[in-house]
Amino acid sequence: MSDDKRHLWKKVLSPLYWDDGKVVMLDQRLLPTREVWNTYTDHAQVADAIREMVIRGAPAIGCAAAMGVALGARALPGDPDPFWQGLLQVCARIAGARPTAVNLSWAVQRQQQLAERTMPQGVLAVRRALEDEAIAIWHEDIACCRAIGKLGAELIPDGAAVLTHCNAGALATGGYGTALGVVRGAVEAGKRLRVYADETRPFLQGARLTAWELQHDGIDVTVIPDVMAGALMSKGEIDCIVVGADRIARNGDVANKIGTYTVAALAARHGVPFYVAAPRSTIDRAIASGAAIPIEERPAREVTHVGATQIVPEGVKTRNMAFDVTPAELVAAIITEVGIARPPSETTVDALFERDFDWRAWE
Amino acid sequence: MSDDKRHLWKKVLSPLYWDDGKVVMLDQRLLPTREVWNTYTDHAQVADAIREMVIRGAPAIGCAAAMGVALGARALPGDPDPFWQGLLQVCARIAGARPTAVNLSWAVQRQQQLAERTMPQGVLAVRRALEDEAIAIWHEDIACCRAIGKLGAELIPDGAAVLTHCNAGALATGGYGTALGVVRGAVEAGKRLRVYADETRPFLQGARLTAWELQHDGIDVTVIPDVMAGALMSKGEIDCIVVGADRIARNGDVANKIGTYTVAALAARHGVPFYVAAPRSTIDRAIASGAAIPIEERPAREVTHVGATQIVPEGVKTRNMAFDVTPAELVAAIITEVGIARPPSETTVDALFERDFDWRAWE
Repeated sequence: MSDDKRHLWKKVLSPLYWDDGKVVMLDQRLLPTREVWNTYTDHAQVADAIREMVIRGAPAIGCAAAMGVALGARALPGDPDPFWQGLLQVCARIAGARPTAVNLSWAVQRQQQLAERTMPQGVLAVRRALEDEAIAIWHEDIACCRAIGKLGAELIPDGAAVLTHCNAGALATGGYGTALGVVRGAVEAGKRLRVYADETRPFLQGARLTAWELQHDGIDVTVIPDVMAGALMSKGEIDCIVVGADRIARNGDVANKIGTYTVAALAARHGVPFYVAAPRSTIDRAIASGAAIPIEERPAREVTHVGATQIVPEGVKTRNMAFDVTPAELVAAIITEVGIARPPSETTVDALFERDFDWRAWE
Repeated sequence: MSDDKRHLWKKVLSPLYWDDGKVVMLDQRLLPTREVWNTYTDHAQVADAIREMVIRGAPAIGCAAAMGVALGARALPGDPDPFWQGLLQVCARIAGARPTAVNLSWAVQRQQQLAERTMPQGVLAVRRALEDEAIAIWHEDIACCRAIGKLGAELIPDGAAVLTHCNAGALATGGYGTALGVVRGAVEAGKRLRVYADETRPFLQGARLTAWELQHDGIDVTVIPDVMAGALMSKGEIDCIVVGADRIARNGDVANKIGTYTVAALAARHGVPFYVAAPRSTIDRAIASGAAIPIEERPAREVTHVGATQIVPEGVKTRNMAFDVTPAELVAAIITEVGIARPPSETTVDALFERDFDWRAWE
């Protein structure tokens, strides 16, 4: 792999990159006020960084995990037996950083299986293979995002005001982003856009991360409190909406960050098209409809405090549902790397799985 | 006026009271973490407290202003001419504290006109009249709220989960509250309720004030981020909604805190009744519909910071519309002290103005 391929991050905004035996990650906990890139030389540090949310977003975590395994392999003894035993420990350490993230265990398993297959060729070959695979996983994710961006761009009118919720951006993926990939794709296609970013309480991914990364790329962005989206739509100031997805059911129901459903319901009322951008891997065809998607409740502190400031009285109850479900009937289209399901239904969703995706064509 | 009438605050939660020549106000800037009652002996201090938002909410500000004038009159010379000149200065100082609040100038004018009428009876009589009038203005506002609460209680089913937005509570009025007056009225009528309080970004009146005052009164309250109301409604967890109003047009369109329209639109989608509770004085019959109500844009800092924590990158644009307009068609009923406009329309709204209200019956 040539040097510039290893440094794809220089052309596309990424939250991490592989730098010749080191993993470099943007510390997202410090955004939006400080841009600090941490360098990791040890797999245990990478595991800690994942657990401590230096990096977040399922696809981004998968990339970091794959790089962490490659990092771990470099430091292990050259003798095959202790190397293999050590590698299993490295994989276990990283996979345990956030046990519920699917992309994390998927990336670690992919690396471990690759190592097992490559072991007959010797430790040096395994080290190289893990390193190349980590970069491949990262680039594959960026390629997916760029394909989503190119397909989705066609849905965005020139001059549009685009509303987004949460951060389905470069920072949540290997780079480029899904919903914000569509924004980037439209900008690359020469369209002039203005983006409204819902701040996205309680964790403020819109205010902190979406605003930061669009400003970084020179894309016009305005942050609004979540409560303001309805007023803007009623005044005709929003032309379309693009959000990401955490999980999509076979019928096209979409689980995404809490507040997404509210935006979709307002959009339906005002005739504003509501689009979901996500890699095909987000679609869980084992789930028939959104009703079967479990909704995680998260810690109260995200609601009761912002930074050090307490905003809810001591002893008052709170709710903190992390996601909500938007029924397929409110979704104009689901944009994936292999095509657009429009309108979403079992038929149009199934059709996406009959197509191939050649990520190397996007390099 | 008997002592216990002067201390109505002991029976009804009020954000202020008159304590024998002193004005005592709860410092709402420090809520929800600290309950501090400030004592004011000087009218200029009261003016400063209004300007610095120790007290907020238009009816509450009106009460504070009337008490401030009474306070000023006590400190003026006993000689009629310098007394009258001094009183005009006191009135101007207080009226200028927040020049745009209608209730503020209304209360000051009412006091000044009373003083002018009473001057022939001497300075001592004016001082007494201003003091009694300040208490009357305060008690009248509480009486309005209690009447709203009693009428509105009939609309709230026993066992209901009631959602509210912002703080239309005791803290925003002379006491008891409008939307939260309906909650208190239902509780006094023996109904068991659970209240969900939208946190109400950007200023967080729901999280900070509504939660505090309902907890204070022992009413079951749960704070949610604004983005969560839609998910709760879609799960059938909200039975009705009660909010206040900043201004109501003759056709029943309601201007209220930003985010109110979103709640109303979600309520319509889920068949949840959406009620507005407000004194009749909130209805501006000179305005035909909500389209004519101007919407104030407030400072960016309310959006970009929470306490000392910066949540939006430096240099990124924000919007901060203070209010939105809910069309009358989304409002099941407007609850006032003289009756309920159900459904709101020019006819039902006009009918409210054919009735009398005897606030002394509520003492």
